[in-house]
Amino acid sequence: MPTLRLALAQVNPTVGDLDGNARIVREWSRAAADAGAQLVAFPEMMLTGYPVEDLVFRDSFVVASRAALRGLAADLVADGLGELPVLVGYLDADGPPTMSADANPGRGPRNALAVLHAGRIAATYVKHHLPNYGVFDEGRYFVPGDTLTVVRIGGVDVALTICEDLWQAGGPFAAARRAGVGLVVTINGSPYELDKDDVRLPLVRRRAAEAGATVAYVNMVGGQDELVFDGDSMIVTADGTLLTRAPQFVPHLLVHDLELPGADAAAIRPDAPLRDEAARAEGSGAADDMTVSRVQLSDELAAPPAPRAVGGIAEAVSGEAEIWQALVLGLRDYVRKNGFGSVVLGLSGGIDSAVVATIAVDALGPERVVAVSLPSGHSSEHSRDDAADLAKRTGLDYRVQPIQPMVDTFLANLSLSGLAVENLQARVRGVILMGLSNQEGHLVLTTGNKSELAVGYSTLYGDSVGGFNPVKDVWKTLVWKLARWRNDDAVRHGTEPPIPENSIAKPPSAELRPGQLDTDSLPDYPVLDAILAGYVDGDMGRDDLVAAGHDAQLVDRVLRMVDLAEYKRRQSAPGTKISIKAFGRDRRLPITNRWRERGTDPVPADTGTGADQTNDARGAHAGL
Amino acid sequence: MPTLRLALAQVNPTVGDLDGNARIVREWSRAAADAGAQLVAFPEMMLTGYPVEDLVFRDSFVVASRAALRGLAADLVADGLGELPVLVGYLDADGPPTMSADANPGRGPRNALAVLHAGRIAATYVKHHLPNYGVFDEGRYFVPGDTLTVVRIGGVDVALTICEDLWQAGGPFAAARRAGVGLVVTINGSPYELDKDDVRLPLVRRRAAEAGATVAYVNMVGGQDELVFDGDSMIVTADGTLLTRAPQFVPHLLVHDLELPGADAAAIRPDAPLRDEAARAEGSGAADDMTVSRVQLSDELAAPPAPRAVGGIAEAVSGEAEIWQALVLGLRDYVRKNGFGSVVLGLSGGIDSAVVATIAVDALGPERVVAVSLPSGHSSEHSRDDAADLAKRTGLDYRVQPIQPMVDTFLANLSLSGLAVENLQARVRGVILMGLSNQEGHLVLTTGNKSELAVGYSTLYGDSVGGFNPVKDVWKTLVWKLARWRNDDAVRHGTEPPIPENSIAKPPSAELRPGQLDTDSLPDYPVLDAILAGYVDGDMGRDDLVAAGHDAQLVDRVLRMVDLAEYKRRQSAPGTKISIKAFGRDRRLPITNRWRERGTDPVPADTGTGADQTNDARGAHAGL
Repeated sequence: MPTLRLALAQVNPTVGDLDGNARIVREWSRAAADAGAQLVAFPEMMLTGYPVEDLVFRDSFVVASRAALRGLAADLVADGLGELPVLVGYLDADGPPTMSADANPGRGPRNALAVLHAGRIAATYVKHHLPNYGVFDEGRYFVPGDTLTVVRIGGVDVALTICEDLWQAGGPFAAARRAGVGLVVTINGSPYELDKDDVRLPLVRRRAAEAGATVAYVNMVGGQDELVFDGDSMIVTADGTLLTRAPQFVPHLLVHDLELPGADAAAIRPDAPLRDEAARAEGSGAADDMTVSRVQLSDELAAPPAPRAVGGIAEAVSGEAEIWQALVLGLRDYVRKNGFGSVVLGLSGGIDSAVVATIAVDALGPERVVAVSLPSGHSSEHSRDDAADLAKRTGLDYRVQPIQPMVDTFLANLSLSGLAVENLQARVRGVILMGLSNQEGHLVLTTGNKSELAVGYSTLYGDSVGGFNPVKDVWKTLVWKLARWRNDDAVRHGTEPPIPENSIAKPPSAELRPGQLDTDSLPDYPVLDAILAGYVDGDMGRDDLVAAGHDAQLVDRVLRMVDLAEYKRRQSAPGTKISIKAFGRDRRLPITNRWRERGTDPVPADTGTGADQTNDARGAHAGL
Repeated sequence: MPTLRLALAQVNPTVGDLDGNARIVREWSRAAADAGAQLVAFPEMMLTGYPVEDLVFRDSFVVASRAALRGLAADLVADGLGELPVLVGYLDADGPPTMSADANPGRGPRNALAVLHAGRIAATYVKHHLPNYGVFDEGRYFVPGDTLTVVRIGGVDVALTICEDLWQAGGPFAAARRAGVGLVVTINGSPYELDKDDVRLPLVRRRAAEAGATVAYVNMVGGQDELVFDGDSMIVTADGTLLTRAPQFVPHLLVHDLELPGADAAAIRPDAPLRDEAARAEGSGAADDMTVSRVQLSDELAAPPAPRAVGGIAEAVSGEAEIWQALVLGLRDYVRKNGFGSVVLGLSGGIDSAVVATIAVDALGPERVVAVSLPSGHSSEHSRDDAADLAKRTGLDYRVQPIQPMVDTFLANLSLSGLAVENLQARVRGVILMGLSNQEGHLVLTTGNKSELAVGYSTLYGDSVGGFNPVKDVWKTLVWKLARWRNDDAVRHGTEPPIPENSIAKPPSAELRPGQLDTDSLPDYPVLDAILAGYVDGDMGRDDLVAAGHDAQLVDRVLRMVDLAEYKRRQSAPGTKISIKAFGRDRRLPITNRWRERGTDPVPADTGTGADQTNDARGAHAGL
């Protein structure tokens, strides 16, 4: 069997930065060549970054993407890398430089993969399965491909696939089996979700079995707005053996020698991509329509240089460690890719801001994190102490700015009472943080967790101000777990735990009125989070939640709070998705919505957002 | 030829209000029966409202929609309306009460139409073409139907279609021709866009010609978050004659007698929906796969009672009048459907807030509109006078709340300068408006026009606070035109023009520093809006804009401002869509995005949002 030294480049592109992304391809192709690789693969939409969303509709951008691809092919030759086949994702559309009408039968934009070789675009493949669910809108953007491209490299037939192709049975992997390939390369832009890595390996195994071939999976790494890509690139044989696997959340060049079955030379008809009649003979669904286009790239290769390349299998991380890494990377890349030098946040002494401050310190270093204690007359002494304690432990830039003078001036000039006074305090804090941002250039971080966002337990334009929210998709109970994990991890590494024990242990309070506790308005968080996870992440209805053992009245109250807080979420800052369903484009609900989960009870005709102004959540929809 | 008296019920459902929407169907079916109608059609997704977005994934909601449909069928009998066939849009999914696997071959949620008759769901149709562009995500939500349902009513064969089916050649209308129907009914949830009514009539004519049959088009009316449905229901014959057309923006029962060709009785096989082989014989694309399902509902009908019913053709409105009606309806329904009793906004004396206040007065009446003058030390005397003048002309609830004491307290406690001080003033105003909202329960309106949103000329959490923005999709130059039109319209009707001439005529200023004018930071609005319309609405690139005659340096500056303001737009309030491409889900761009339109110039590697803090726009991205 021929030996192929394959390199998977798990790298971090930036949306829109065509030049920078091409530079990454050149640098990592050089590293791959230096390691003796005979083929190197980069992630989905590598050249443009992913997802580019409506940039797809900008002709100037599409033209630039295609020009960048041609330029890259030439630059690789200039770099002395012309003989190394480089697989790279890019944005394509009609016209050159696609191979032929057969290879790209669709019209309109295409999520494509190019094989760059000898200064040419030697072959292309167009993504067949387009995800149009969750955070994905690829049905909006792309025309699907219906041809499987098989490239012969060093005597091995290599089939090309892209991301969602892997998640569907039939289709390209079934076509790859019929085409008799030795290797399927799949390039990915697969966002992180908790424990998704536990799903990926069995999935790759299923597709490897379906294709009857080794599958090489390369994923990007890095943050893009609400998404964070976790890498987790790997190679799996047809019989399900995991050969090598890259660590999550860091750039990594995975180089591994593969023994692969040699191709049947008779299958090659380079000038006339053959229609694979076998594809029509078996199976069902979309796979039936896939044709196979074969391209001869290179004959037998020399054996790769010694020593044998072994990628190794990175130690798996999971649970809180995995989530923490995702949140750190998501924040770091949002800050870096948007050109900020520092962040600022309000530090209350409570658990949410303590965890966000610690994530920020881990992401950026303490000297780039400004934390401001913003005490009011209702702030407890321990809150201020806890904030100062965290500042001391982490070394971040700590400041104290009492809000009472501003609050008092508002109260002297306006007639406000009750909830309006509570919200006022949060809004004065927001004005101060935004003033610091304007004056000093920091990105403002907001710290509302997923439970708060769900029930609207926040003040619009108050504690919710900010450009990014690292814990937006983290349930309150998970915030606590992350805090404990981070402190324990510090102990394991012989460093000082960053988060004061008191911030973790004390009952949560917004401290907007004397003696206020979250539990005045909300059930205990373990109870609340269980209901919310069912309703938000699981789309469970009221009766299902009650049947699952939750108190009916409590379910009714919680669901109502979630429904009525939609307008607040619509104006909320972006934050890193870590769950199966994050607020934002992952969960799209109307604001104007009279549907209320009520079991079999009738829905009151006058039930609307504004009618609910007596709701006792902090900053309730009266805040609209 | 048989005569059929057809009623099209152009009504205003509310998303999620199953009971309320069913009540509308019963009331308007009663009115249709009273008018002698023999068939009445309601809009797309009538029972659920439209669009319901991710409610589709909530099983409890789907079950409730289906139960509401069955309940409605029974209630219509109880109302003595069992003999009137009622066509109503609803949300379906697998299982009863769909007719048969043949009629509903898909799995998963379906955008469906039911024919209610004699207490039964006599027939259903599933939308064939699913829009997945612009504001529409139907590829995310629905499984497409592949069967054309033809119902024989009073000896006439009636084909059923839904909305997007009308916008695509081939498909159901081509199948309707092959099925030899006399009438095609199309039920719609078609959102308003400027001059869309001018597109609809030719479109309906093309489809009527394609079907070789009369086409009856019924659309909903009313506001749903950012969409406003404008009605414009109509009936057009196969030869293109417009028989009747309803007014836009108001509920309307359009009743018209149609002379229609009688059906070929031989085609009927009620128990075995026949596969229409002809459908496979001609044409191309999706139409080829449509089968025809035929249902016998009623034999020859008695002639409708005299006098002959003639729906009439409503006078067309266009331009500013049409837009004004859309904006008024969009605001009124947002307020009403979300249960608010009143609105509050800041009234600066400038044109944007003057126009929004006038829209609010037209939508809600002056007694439900609170306008607050929020003068600072930089506010000119004429600004206060103009605000008071508008208040006097319209009779709204006018208040004055100087902001200087609060601004001064912030400045005494924080070290702020320049842009930070400008933004501070806007944010103090925001805090005051939100305080009034919390205290008194008003919905806060924000007044930033589309030009400001495009270039980020606003203060985040300052003048941008609010739950709804009536002029979000209105270019600044159009704001002025609307003001002039509204004043002229008042004169035409012999009432007082609401908007002070001075608010229209004076140079626009944010009045955040002495002598400030918008033109300090921005080009003249006619120049700016022309560039923005090309870039935002038209997806034109930099070189195209320069080729169109715009100054290259100015284009570069404006495009950069638009790109860098994405983070602000992501947190902006919803507002009524009136253009071909509104900010919001109509235009989805990443925040993290280093693509800069630069012609052939290289893109600087360090170009990011935060790096641009010297941009002189009011509340620039430093405000993040």
